[in-house]
Amino acid sequence: MIHRKHSTVESMPQKAGRGVSMQMLLSLQDAPNFAMRCFTIDAGGFMPHHTNTVEHEQYVLSGSARVKSGDQTFEAHAGDILFIPAGEAHSYETIGDEAYVFLCLIPKGEDCIEMVGC
Amino acid sequence: MIHRKHSTVESMPQKAGRGVSMQMLLSLQDAPNFAMRCFTIDAGGFMPHHTNTVEHEQYVLSGSARVKSGDQTFEAHAGDILFIPAGEAHSYETIGDEAYVFLCLIPKGEDCIEMVGC
Repeated sequence: MIHRKHSTVESMPQKAGRGVSMQMLLSLQDAPNFAMRCFTIDAGGFMPHHTNTVEHEQYVLSGSARVKSGDQTFEAHAGDILFIPAGEAHSYETIGDEAYVFLCLIPKGEDCIEMVGC
Repeated sequence: MIHRKHSTVESMPQKAGRGVSMQMLLSLQDAPNFAMRCFTIDAGGFMPHHTNTVEHEQYVLSGSARVKSGDQTFEAHAGDILFIPAGEAHSYETIGDEAYVFLCLIPKGEDCIEMVGC
């Protein structure tokens, strides 16, 4: 079994967008079927419109963001649950002066990320 | 895509243990590969020693518990990450006067639950 503290997991800055970092909480070396990551988007930051070849299951831990996914735009807040199907273009833009922090779980399998023109 | 609020998801009391309830945040009807559940164990409650045929990926949202898994016993707190392999016996007992609330994700596939003699 594995027991680790969120705060001890290395934070890796991400190239796409602004103010985005990722922590690998449970990797596919730790677990056989799906990976648990945590993304932080600093206040004033964003993740641009993109698609993934795998679906996302997300749980918002803190902060707020304007999320676009498919043809929907909405505000997401701490305690919200999001499911983004494989192949659906989506983006995030923080709201307010707090970082937007969310768990994002993906199944095993190659994840090809493609940016979508704005 | 799916966007829902944690607080709006029905809470289902569980038979095993004491003070245990479960919310199905993302079911295998919502998502193809793994399900996101949230378990709440009320203060003073417990979940008895048991095994599952599927692994667990867990994120503790609030509260504290004494967790036994395999040959380890430890305290888990908000912000902790746990991976419990398929087939490993485990149990939870709350600590203090706060409910222990944790996300618990499982892959698709039949989950046979077996109680383990204390």
